[in-house]
Amino acid sequence: MLEDLKQKVFQANLDLVKHGLVIFTWGNVSGIDRESGLVVIKPSGVDYDTMKVSDMVVVDLDGNVVEGDLRPSSDTPTHLALYKAFPEIGGVVHTHSTYATAWAQAGIDLPNIGTTHADYFHQAIPCTADMTEAEVKGEYELETGNVIIERFKGMNPVHTPGVLVKNHGPFAWGKDPHDAVHNAVVMEQVAKMASIAYSVNPNLTMNPLLIEKHFNRKHGPNAYYGQKKA
Amino acid sequence: MLEDLKQKVFQANLDLVKHGLVIFTWGNVSGIDRESGLVVIKPSGVDYDTMKVSDMVVVDLDGNVVEGDLRPSSDTPTHLALYKAFPEIGGVVHTHSTYATAWAQAGIDLPNIGTTHADYFHQAIPCTADMTEAEVKGEYELETGNVIIERFKGMNPVHTPGVLVKNHGPFAWGKDPHDAVHNAVVMEQVAKMASIAYSVNPNLTMNPLLIEKHFNRKHGPNAYYGQKKA
Amino acid sequence: MLEDLKQKVFQANLDLVKHGLVIFTWGNVSGIDRESGLVVIKPSGVDYDTMKVSDMVVVDLDGNVVEGDLRPSSDTPTHLALYKAFPEIGGVVHTHSTYATAWAQAGIDLPNIGTTHADYFHQAIPCTADMTEAEVKGEYELETGNVIIERFKGMNPVHTPGVLVKNHGPFAWGKDPHDAVHNAVVMEQVAKMASIAYSVNPNLTMNPLLIEKHFNRKHGPNAYYGQKKA
Amino acid sequence: MLEDLKQKVFQANLDLVKHGLVIFTWGNVSGIDRESGLVVIKPSGVDYDTMKVSDMVVVDLDGNVVEGDLRPSSDTPTHLALYKAFPEIGGVVHTHSTYATAWAQAGIDLPNIGTTHADYFHQAIPCTADMTEAEVKGEYELETGNVIIERFKGMNPVHTPGVLVKNHGPFAWGKDPHDAVHNAVVMEQVAKMASIAYSVNPNLTMNPLLIEKHFNRKHGPNAYYGQKKA
Repeated sequence: MLEDLKQKVFQANLDLVKHGLVIFTWGNVSGIDRESGLVVIKPSGVDYDTMKVSDMVVVDLDGNVVEGDLRPSSDTPTHLALYKAFPEIGGVVHTHSTYATAWAQAGIDLPNIGTTHADYFHQAIPCTADMTEAEVKGEYELETGNVIIERFKGMNPVHTPGVLVKNHGPFAWGKDPHDAVHNAVVMEQVAKMASIAYSVNPNLTMNPLLIEKHFNRKHGPNAYYGQKKA
Repeated sequence: MLEDLKQKVFQANLDLVKHGLVIFTWGNVSGIDRESGLVVIKPSGVDYDTMKVSDMVVVDLDGNVVEGDLRPSSDTPTHLALYKAFPEIGGVVHTHSTYATAWAQAGIDLPNIGTTHADYFHQAIPCTADMTEAEVKGEYELETGNVIIERFKGMNPVHTPGVLVKNHGPFAWGKDPHDAVHNAVVMEQVAKMASIAYSVNPNLTMNPLLIEKHFNRKHGPNAYYGQKKA
Repeated sequence: MLEDLKQKVFQANLDLVKHGLVIFTWGNVSGIDRESGLVVIKPSGVDYDTMKVSDMVVVDLDGNVVEGDLRPSSDTPTHLALYKAFPEIGGVVHTHSTYATAWAQAGIDLPNIGTTHADYFHQAIPCTADMTEAEVKGEYELETGNVIIERFKGMNPVHTPGVLVKNHGPFAWGKDPHDAVHNAVVMEQVAKMASIAYSVNPNLTMNPLLIEKHFNRKHGPNAYYGQKKA
Repeated sequence: MLEDLKQKVFQANLDLVKHGLVIFTWGNVSGIDRESGLVVIKPSGVDYDTMKVSDMVVVDLDGNVVEGDLRPSSDTPTHLALYKAFPEIGGVVHTHSTYATAWAQAGIDLPNIGTTHADYFHQAIPCTADMTEAEVKGEYELETGNVIIERFKGMNPVHTPGVLVKNHGPFAWGKDPHDAVHNAVVMEQVAKMASIAYSVNPNLTMNPLLIEKHFNRKHGPNAYYGQKKA
């Protein structure tokens, strides 16, 4: 069942390790098959060293396990909420990567101050609001998804494919699991660069013209970065 | 004698290297066999590269060497003091890992400002008081244990399994040597994240609701992270 | 055609990975054959893992592809502008390396505050001005080259072989592709050192005598560093 | 001639790479045979990748090459000055390691703020004064040695085996080349820790009792760290 997607989700989870975004089991990637509405996700608390493709868990959009012997990631309800709210996305990733998590702990938006950021994220990567007592004591992981969705009101989640959950860490997404991990790597890198840049010059300024130029160079209708897709 | 524990202590010491927590011989892990009251600990000043399982030293809780040809770690009296004061713990680790040691040098508690911290440490990781002349010139390593124990009055050492010894470095503990090393890795990581987070936003705030939620999600009576233990 | 140069440009691109200057495809190196006026450059958006020597693209100084099946790097017009303006140089490199990019985002010159800098770069590594709307909306990559050239008016590009493009990242150059990469590595390293040095002492001072001494020790007419060239 | 010392100096130079203290050729280690008064040192500007034991250069204390086909390190006169002024030392190392060099650029002493420092360096690691025009334009590398020696007036170079040369970088020394490299690694590490510690708490304080305790625990007449030497 969904063997191709399972393989992709499995590989994307291992890529988190390769890119240095996780230690221990602090990360998870999922992917969705939009036709069937089924989501493949990493099992909870399983070591990356011993994890197998067949450990991937299949759930429906209501969170019911459809296939798999292990519990899905405890963050599954957050992933599902994002898939429901953002119909264009095909993969979601959550990590505690060092610099992006530090910005989430700082509790402020990660501003767009360079073309590295603008090549992938159109706007500042937003930081969510403090969660309320009802949210935290209720269906916490679902509500984590909801505060993200709330924060993206008026924003395009495809153009800014990531968020900082305050005092927690980053979520990123993309057109598939591989793309979501790619965006998570970029988020970690721009978080690192921004922490250095502001320490060097707290009063730095961004040329807004570069944001439009670089974002459209890669993502606009006349994108001309990379090789033409066949 | 205690071959299984020796193997575990040996492996946990090597894991310090694997996780990048030590250079040279700047770290040591011990484990206790509560039934016999015997402690297995790394020998003092021996290179990790050449260290063998059989180099592990067995001492009793008074510090007498029961088995082993080498001197035990010079920090042995600190380990023993912790085992006596915290009967729930089974492993102790001391390192000079970069960020946790820097916080110990800074001389302030490492605040709980994110879920990475709250997943493992309930409260701020406390920093001990300055040691007095009597303590430093007396049985220094024993007194180092005592200032830690003093600092934990009114705190639960299982819920906050680590400490910063002022101007020195971190100690961590856990239910066994492996778990103690795991907590030492987490402490280093949250120390790194916190130093970045405060440099980005010195006025950051923590949502206290998340502390309770995340700590209990992993450690409370209704914990639901990871796979059910058989 | 230009097989030797292709091999050098290919190797120099791989050296970016070896030296930790790029993630994904965020970098490109080119080299020029001054006799024919032809430039060899990395193709756009191709993974370093799978890239082959034969993927290198040959363009003339007007940007026409002379040989190669792939599109040249989208930054090609910047490289070409530098080759035209700086006739002494034989290789150009662009990366988004972490610290140099952070300084570019900070938008300030990278000052010469140590002999590591002075051994390779005579002056501060300059940061370009904000690009204008006409420049960004016009032939952007060409204009990126032009703002660099503008910034170097009155400066010797051989003596200070690199620049920070504001809100973007570093360009470096050298007598050949290998030398350009070498300078890019140095720029990243001095950017890292400078960010640490200023955080330790915002009021630090440079002894200007050391700048002249070290630059001339390696690059002056009486250079005496290294082995005598046969 | 001095084959054993050549092997030790060769190995110590490679250890700089292993410990991450050098990139390119930015470092050199020497060792002295006190009986003959001959010094073995790395050749200037030779890659660590291709360097052989037989490339090591033998010089006398006046800097005359006694054996070897290559030029000795351009820093040789600094090494020789230190050997003459500090008769107890047997090895000298110079690097541009990141954090120690950043402190040298910051131009301030590296204070003793933790036991990691006190285990190896009794006092603050001093930073030299600005060199004068006569010194820089004269026999520069010899004068670099002289400003170090000047800075150590009233200090014990064995108890504080390293220095920061202002706007340049660290020199360390020890009883032999291996020990000198060991101290250079420690200096880099304590420089890193101190930069983090001060960023976390600019008003941190050191307990002076710990300095005496830790220094004497390893180096005093009653040292009890490590295994007893046979």
